[in-house]
Amino acid sequence: MTPDSGSINLDEKFAKFSELWSPKVVGRLNDMHIKIAKVQGAFVWHAHADTDEMFMVHKGTLTIRYRDHAVTLGPGEIHVVPKGVEHLPVAPEECQIIMIEPAGTLNTGDAGGERTVAEPSWI
Amino acid sequence: MTPDSGSINLDEKFAKFSELWSPKVVGRLNDMHIKIAKVQGAFVWHAHADTDEMFMVHKGTLTIRYRDHAVTLGPGEIHVVPKGVEHLPVAPEECQIIMIEPAGTLNTGDAGGERTVAEPSWI
Repeated sequence: MTPDSGSINLDEKFAKFSELWSPKVVGRLNDMHIKIAKVQGAFVWHAHADTDEMFMVHKGTLTIRYRDHAVTLGPGEIHVVPKGVEHLPVAPEECQIIMIEPAGTLNTGDAGGERTVAEPSWI
Repeated sequence: MTPDSGSINLDEKFAKFSELWSPKVVGRLNDMHIKIAKVQGAFVWHAHADTDEMFMVHKGTLTIRYRDHAVTLGPGEIHVVPKGVEHLPVAPEECQIIMIEPAGTLNTGDAGGERTVAEPSWI
């Protein structure tokens, strides 16, 4: 049994932590991690040079700002940030999100800084 | 603009087709396709020799049967079928699902047969 060999119940997973902008791994899909995070406010502008990044909203509203436009997501909506494109995740109120990207992808991408989570833990 | 450069609204996408067991592509994440399907009844036993396969439920209930156990998913639940493991998706009533797997992955895996959709269309 791997940690994700049964069903992954998102409500149960989100109930296990409260910190913001701190992604947790809930599953693995080939070389990709399925991560969840609680977010509120603005993150940091960054890009991922080597990979696309998929966002889904579980609860709340998330805006992905680009330099020239923005995409806003609610529950039941998906958005893929293209590889290499600068973006800024913003949530006016606390929002629960799902992200899928290669294991090892840093949350802050090329920007680094104090909000970087080098090795997100499984939850 | 690629087909998925904005937000992908799942309710809008599911409203565009009615056929069962006919996956449609709604987005791309690196070399993977984000697909959706409406399913009801039992599919066919099959495995994917080269890849894991991620399932999420948008509406309804989906059971992934294995030879020795089963995993049942509702909305807000995720399951990853491991590479090479035989499985049978079953839905007692019509169910709307999201799947993520490498582009080119056949819905019937190694089983083939008349329910194979060789090249699912974008929707």
